[in-house]
Amino acid sequence: MGAVLKFTDFFCPKSVAVIGASRDETKVGHTIVDNIINSGYRGKILLVNPNTDNIHGIKCYKSILDIKDDIDLAIMVIPNKFIMEALDDCAKKNTRFSIIISAGFKETGREGALLEQQVTEKAKIYGIRLLGPNCLGMIDFICPLNASFSPNMPEKGAIAFLSQSGALGTAVLDWAKTNGIGLSKFVSMGNKADISEIDLFEDWLADSNTNVITAYVEGVTNGRQFMDVCSKVTKHKPIIIIKSGNTDAGAKAVSSHTGTLAGSSKAYEAAFKQTGVIRARTVKDLFNLATAFAHQPLPEGKNIAIITNAGGPGIMASDACEENGITLAHIKQETVEELKTFLPSAGNFYNPIDVLGDALAQRYAKTFEVILKDRNINAVLVLLTPQAMTQVFETAKALTEALKKSGRKIPVVTSFMGGYEVKEGVDFLNIAGIPNFSIPEEAVQALKALINQAEWINKKQNDFRIFKADKKYASEIFKRNLSQDRHELGEMEAREILLAYDIKVPYAAVAKNITDAEKIVKKTGFPVVVKIDSPDILHKSDVGGIKVGIENEAELDIAFQSIMSSVKKFMPDARINGISVQEMIQDKKEIIIGVNKDPQFGHMMMFGLGGIYVEVLKDVSFRIAPINESDAREMIEEIKAIKLLKGVRGEYPSDIDSIVEVLLKISQLVTDFPDIIEMDINPLFVKQKGKGSIAGDVRIRIQN
Amino acid sequence: MGAVLKFTDFFCPKSVAVIGASRDETKVGHTIVDNIINSGYRGKILLVNPNTDNIHGIKCYKSILDIKDDIDLAIMVIPNKFIMEALDDCAKKNTRFSIIISAGFKETGREGALLEQQVTEKAKIYGIRLLGPNCLGMIDFICPLNASFSPNMPEKGAIAFLSQSGALGTAVLDWAKTNGIGLSKFVSMGNKADISEIDLFEDWLADSNTNVITAYVEGVTNGRQFMDVCSKVTKHKPIIIIKSGNTDAGAKAVSSHTGTLAGSSKAYEAAFKQTGVIRARTVKDLFNLATAFAHQPLPEGKNIAIITNAGGPGIMASDACEENGITLAHIKQETVEELKTFLPSAGNFYNPIDVLGDALAQRYAKTFEVILKDRNINAVLVLLTPQAMTQVFETAKALTEALKKSGRKIPVVTSFMGGYEVKEGVDFLNIAGIPNFSIPEEAVQALKALINQAEWINKKQNDFRIFKADKKYASEIFKRNLSQDRHELGEMEAREILLAYDIKVPYAAVAKNITDAEKIVKKTGFPVVVKIDSPDILHKSDVGGIKVGIENEAELDIAFQSIMSSVKKFMPDARINGISVQEMIQDKKEIIIGVNKDPQFGHMMMFGLGGIYVEVLKDVSFRIAPINESDAREMIEEIKAIKLLKGVRGEYPSDIDSIVEVLLKISQLVTDFPDIIEMDINPLFVKQKGKGSIAGDVRIRIQN
Repeated sequence: MGAVLKFTDFFCPKSVAVIGASRDETKVGHTIVDNIINSGYRGKILLVNPNTDNIHGIKCYKSILDIKDDIDLAIMVIPNKFIMEALDDCAKKNTRFSIIISAGFKETGREGALLEQQVTEKAKIYGIRLLGPNCLGMIDFICPLNASFSPNMPEKGAIAFLSQSGALGTAVLDWAKTNGIGLSKFVSMGNKADISEIDLFEDWLADSNTNVITAYVEGVTNGRQFMDVCSKVTKHKPIIIIKSGNTDAGAKAVSSHTGTLAGSSKAYEAAFKQTGVIRARTVKDLFNLATAFAHQPLPEGKNIAIITNAGGPGIMASDACEENGITLAHIKQETVEELKTFLPSAGNFYNPIDVLGDALAQRYAKTFEVILKDRNINAVLVLLTPQAMTQVFETAKALTEALKKSGRKIPVVTSFMGGYEVKEGVDFLNIAGIPNFSIPEEAVQALKALINQAEWINKKQNDFRIFKADKKYASEIFKRNLSQDRHELGEMEAREILLAYDIKVPYAAVAKNITDAEKIVKKTGFPVVVKIDSPDILHKSDVGGIKVGIENEAELDIAFQSIMSSVKKFMPDARINGISVQEMIQDKKEIIIGVNKDPQFGHMMMFGLGGIYVEVLKDVSFRIAPINESDAREMIEEIKAIKLLKGVRGEYPSDIDSIVEVLLKISQLVTDFPDIIEMDINPLFVKQKGKGSIAGDVRIRIQN
Repeated sequence: MGAVLKFTDFFCPKSVAVIGASRDETKVGHTIVDNIINSGYRGKILLVNPNTDNIHGIKCYKSILDIKDDIDLAIMVIPNKFIMEALDDCAKKNTRFSIIISAGFKETGREGALLEQQVTEKAKIYGIRLLGPNCLGMIDFICPLNASFSPNMPEKGAIAFLSQSGALGTAVLDWAKTNGIGLSKFVSMGNKADISEIDLFEDWLADSNTNVITAYVEGVTNGRQFMDVCSKVTKHKPIIIIKSGNTDAGAKAVSSHTGTLAGSSKAYEAAFKQTGVIRARTVKDLFNLATAFAHQPLPEGKNIAIITNAGGPGIMASDACEENGITLAHIKQETVEELKTFLPSAGNFYNPIDVLGDALAQRYAKTFEVILKDRNINAVLVLLTPQAMTQVFETAKALTEALKKSGRKIPVVTSFMGGYEVKEGVDFLNIAGIPNFSIPEEAVQALKALINQAEWINKKQNDFRIFKADKKYASEIFKRNLSQDRHELGEMEAREILLAYDIKVPYAAVAKNITDAEKIVKKTGFPVVVKIDSPDILHKSDVGGIKVGIENEAELDIAFQSIMSSVKKFMPDARINGISVQEMIQDKKEIIIGVNKDPQFGHMMMFGLGGIYVEVLKDVSFRIAPINESDAREMIEEIKAIKLLKGVRGEYPSDIDSIVEVLLKISQLVTDFPDIIEMDINPLFVKQKGKGSIAGDVRIRIQN
């Protein structure tokens, strides 16, 4: 990241220089000049080309230094080897932003990457912010300025879009233009040497022309910064992102549950959830949702009314509502009575409200008017099929007028189904800012997104709870291990770490021999759990290194011997500290809390029920640390087996509050110590509500 | 269902009469005449209207009886009260088919329903098959004949569509026309008094102009017949259905697990799976898939190659492949070598194959040609973004030619992304029969459907296994209960039923008192399970009516008393046969097999793992009985917890073969006895592989 600048001078500079402007129509350096002119840019256009006098009558300078004026934005379309020099020259012209269209950098291999690094460093020194290299450029639809080599200019609108793929960018521009979708800004990020989604999201938060932020992203540059910016922005404007590369073809093998279940795609999912980013699966979804957000207010609740002139689509919409957890509003009795005064008796006065196939515009509008008066209703979906008598255009018009007249700020979406027959009406709605979806299901999904966004914005901002912890003591343990080049903490040390963060552990001690063990049992009482204590053994049960439910001295003796011989057999070279003898917690549920360090986002926490729930059913949830209390609660609520913790069939509910606390304490611990790269509490024994949790076993792996 | 007739005379009759033809342009009776004429119908058009001489110069008869010729198809657009008489008259003209456009029947209430019944019965007597009433009519695009009041005629094509909603039908016709989707037949079924999806699917199986059958259905008329027809048809042509009304708002409360988890939507899902019907979620999905099937061959495997001129969409497509379980083909080394001879070195020679942003048509075609020679590849997806140099139209043309030249019968789909810029290319592909999808994800979904269909067609046709069973003995038990008006079998009787069908049960007997119980234990040995035996108690555990793991006589005594007192407390009026004492099976997994009778489809079977898997996680699968062996295996494989039965972490695998057998025997039992309305084996104890299964508890409910 370079210095912080206002991006106004980037998107709508007073002067733009095209370094490498060309008279040759087949060259990108020509297309860009054309695009700047054709977009109606009102600032100064400065062209640089040593071999040309003018292009379209605009003077061409031989060199950048020949230009007298300052250059706000320098667009470079010259071979990669000339970029360094061009930057030097631009610096002398007080250039603050540059778009490097040219390719031949990181994308071509090691040499290109080196050049890219040099260019980036030089720009940083000069305080010049860079877009690209290897990009399509950018378009500001409001300025207006098309500083890209895409000739496609969709209408201006309220949606900002950035793309990490230039090719996808061209397709999206073409698609937006064809489908009448209006944009405020378009940015192709190319190799993201400097300017990234983080800068742009931050800038667009303040951009009054942008209501919705959308992006196609293959990977983010700095996970933590990304999350910080998104958290801030999404409280004011929705961010909708397509993240591709979701499947972990090349997933690395990691030695913990968290690791194997995680993978970068889970980290993105968690990061999006925590920061209110809306994830779209496809380009279509992205713009469907963006269109809904562009001009609709957010609903005050999730009760919607459906108005339709046909049963079938009404059923389809109702199905979609139920599947999306949207409530079909209870229509007030007085509303029903009023509907009955003018709707034919064969109609339906309850949700979905059926105005019948012969409904003209006036009946549609009257119904809509009455519905808008009903305060039980938070959003309206109007369905229309083009039947014999249907007045498509007039209905669109009448609905728009009724909405305006009502004065209600309520989201309204439509699904006028069909093609040519509904086109005029759809176009009218579009201009009026009412988004139309070609099928009811998509309209419902859009409403769902509006509802979710409203809930996100209204969500209480939990402060991060800070627990008292003996950070110094923990730090000593980590340092000692690292200084001895030990990366897996011994069990007793790991327990000490938990204790330092006030996470309970069962009474336990390490026995070197059976006599030790018998002494320890004097303190714990039977039953006990006995476990091999070795820094080299991660999965104790795989090597016969753990026995539970030891009830008496005879069993203790057998267990001790059997563990020792089994471990020697499976891992003859493992360093053995001894056998840990531990109080056995009864009357509990077992859960797993794991931490794994993601290269982008840092510590990713996992939560799930122990045993087959994690291993077989993969019923787990993830969040990025640090988490706040509501994150922790959502993590717990998210798993399918949550009912088991809440108590089914008369069972006592488990102490979920204590799990929340442990999650928060672990979050604090790993945030305090970035050296922790893996950690598992497996199992965490959760007792009945009010009785707390105890960490049965813990593994901590560090690396600095 | 009326008599069986060839539907050729329905879709392309020699003569069509419009009963109620009108000169008034605002009347449906006029629109239909216009549509018949404008569609280019080449048969005889006969019009009936007592008040008009002619319409568009075609003579109008005063009455049906005035017509000399036979009437193959009579379209009725007259008030409902005249329909009965019109049918009488038509019968005299040898009419074999009638479309009743008129409304005023079942949809208006009791009186209309009565009229509909009378009309249907009369038509049946005359051997006239009826479409409607209350429908839009039908269109045959090949004949051609537009016998509907929708003026929209999409192009002719290979997709047949039927709709249970007329309004949705109009929207679909409009939409198909706008999007260049070709249809072979269109039918609006209206109230389905006679002709239903069953007749039409059967007819379309034999229709050489129809390659794909599609439908919007709200409910089927006869579940069993529907399944029989679909099973037959889908082995030759795909059937794609939107079934709306999926959510069970009004689900009835049923007293068994199967009941509460089931509901009609699950029955449809099971029926579709068992008969190879492809379920589409939305109209868009329906036509996306239909378009893929219309002209593409089925793939021989699931290895696909992706060719792209841009990285981003390539990643999106790869993600979608992995999510859909489609394999990115391993490109043969010789193919890679050949690609290297002409693709730029910056390209990618492995899947997805990247021809780079500057690829012209020739490079695309050459790549495609080489790929088509690779027999590792079973299907090809070509992606294109309209970049600066991209030759969209030429690429479409060159791809089509390369495919033809290769002579390979292999599915090819494309995603040319964008709008105006790709339109010419997309249109060309469309005409050439190569389906284009506006986003890669939809193209991949279409390929997935083709792959699934190929697998369905190649699936071995399992014969239904018939097991030896003492049907006569079972029949006596059911009869005895029904004759005494008892609908819940006692536990001992239910065990007898299982034994009659060779399903193992643990040794058990009913004890009236503790002395009896002690005697029984002499045979079973400890441990035992003791359970209340009462026809009035369905969920024994809810009333404290069951104790497991009784280890000795003292425990037996306590359990006996505690069950008796608990049951007396909770259900003082329950009839008590005694307490059943049962051998306790050890070293097993517990599963549940349930049966519930669905009003449409009959016996629906449920399978799941016992306890929380069914109750909390709802991890269950459903099939309609009778099932064959592969159905039973799929049922078992479908649950998420299947790994538990296969053995995780060194556990022994369970005897899945024995579960298959029990499922098949239960299927046979309920098929033998339609009176069974509910049945649960809960738990079925499944032992280690090779050691069988034993039904721990069984409930059977009957009703005739």
